[in-house]
Amino acid sequence: MSASKPLSLSQLIPIDKIRYNEQGLIPAIIQDGLEGRVLTLVWMSSDSLQKTWEDQRVYNCQGSVVELGSHLLITGLRYDPVSQSLLILVECESIAEQQNQEFAQVPSNLLSEVFEVICDRRDHPKEDSYTCKLLAGGDNKILKKIGEESAEVVMACKDNDTEAIASEVADLFYHTLVAIAYHRADLRQVYRKLAERRR
Amino acid sequence: MSASKPLSLSQLIPIDKIRYNEQGLIPAIIQDGLEGRVLTLVWMSSDSLQKTWEDQRVYNCQGSVVELGSHLLITGLRYDPVSQSLLILVECESIAEQQNQEFAQVPSNLLSEVFEVICDRRDHPKEDSYTCKLLAGGDNKILKKIGEESAEVVMACKDNDTEAIASEVADLFYHTLVAIAYHRADLRQVYRKLAERRR
Repeated sequence: MSASKPLSLSQLIPIDKIRYNEQGLIPAIIQDGLEGRVLTLVWMSSDSLQKTWEDQRVYNCQGSVVELGSHLLITGLRYDPVSQSLLILVECESIAEQQNQEFAQVPSNLLSEVFEVICDRRDHPKEDSYTCKLLAGGDNKILKKIGEESAEVVMACKDNDTEAIASEVADLFYHTLVAIAYHRADLRQVYRKLAERRR
Repeated sequence: MSASKPLSLSQLIPIDKIRYNEQGLIPAIIQDGLEGRVLTLVWMSSDSLQKTWEDQRVYNCQGSVVELGSHLLITGLRYDPVSQSLLILVECESIAEQQNQEFAQVPSNLLSEVFEVICDRRDHPKEDSYTCKLLAGGDNKILKKIGEESAEVVMACKDNDTEAIASEVADLFYHTLVAIAYHRADLRQVYRKLAERRR
């Protein structure tokens, strides 16, 4: 078993074409690759970009490490010549819980966003909330819905009705998220398991 | 039925505290709120920020509209005082297909990323790919797995095994994505349907 040689920075992005500003800097958007949360924006020099890639940790132009979370891995890097900026995808075990991390608090894909609403309903029940009623019914109520919704996905597929498929899959995903919230399982762990499917 | 009054910009972010650079500009990261894709980075002035919010279209500091896609809506706005930048969440019906849109090509949450791998396997079959075998088996093979995996989610919940829940949910999501790809249904439409659950 031989590990594949790590890519060099120049294999990933056209480093010769990167346009830095008059101070020799470029803005780099740092995004969590699991959930899509934008974590922060970091100003980088050519040196800090190189060091970021080599060390698999994010360095700013002052040469300091930007704290983002544990077990950081850089999984993607893009340069956009139009906006003259970089996009750096990172994967962390957990996202650093720092004060002032304004951006990371924004759920930035619908699945995570709906999951946060469900967890909020679980922790702060509201009357007339369908989610609260489900949660109050416990496993037997929630899991019955998973059975029902998965059958509806099957039927929509058999009908080859793409509108119905989207709608029933959304219902199945929603009820599955309720089960995850009810059992206090970890949605980031689901993403991590999905990541194994990607390879 | 009365529509709620739209929020003013100052209700969303502390506009008095925003720090612009010497040119009176601030970098704004534009992110798609459905999938979490970073679309671009736009330099804004205080005026273009205001106009962006009022018009629900993204304006750069030259006062030009940045083309991002059809039926744009601005769904979120954050200011991060540490990085002195803005994060603007937008929802578009479809993302603009422009050349040089480097960032938007990066799938930035695991669900979308796995979906793109599945679609790629569908369009460019590979031997020894589990996904290709599933797709070759058609509905009867794919949907049988959805039934099986949803039953496994149910059992993991009944066992209250959070590790198993994450793993089985990932399997259920993966096989559901295969069904969506097989029927050429639209994952963004699933997100849109989920968005209705968020309210």
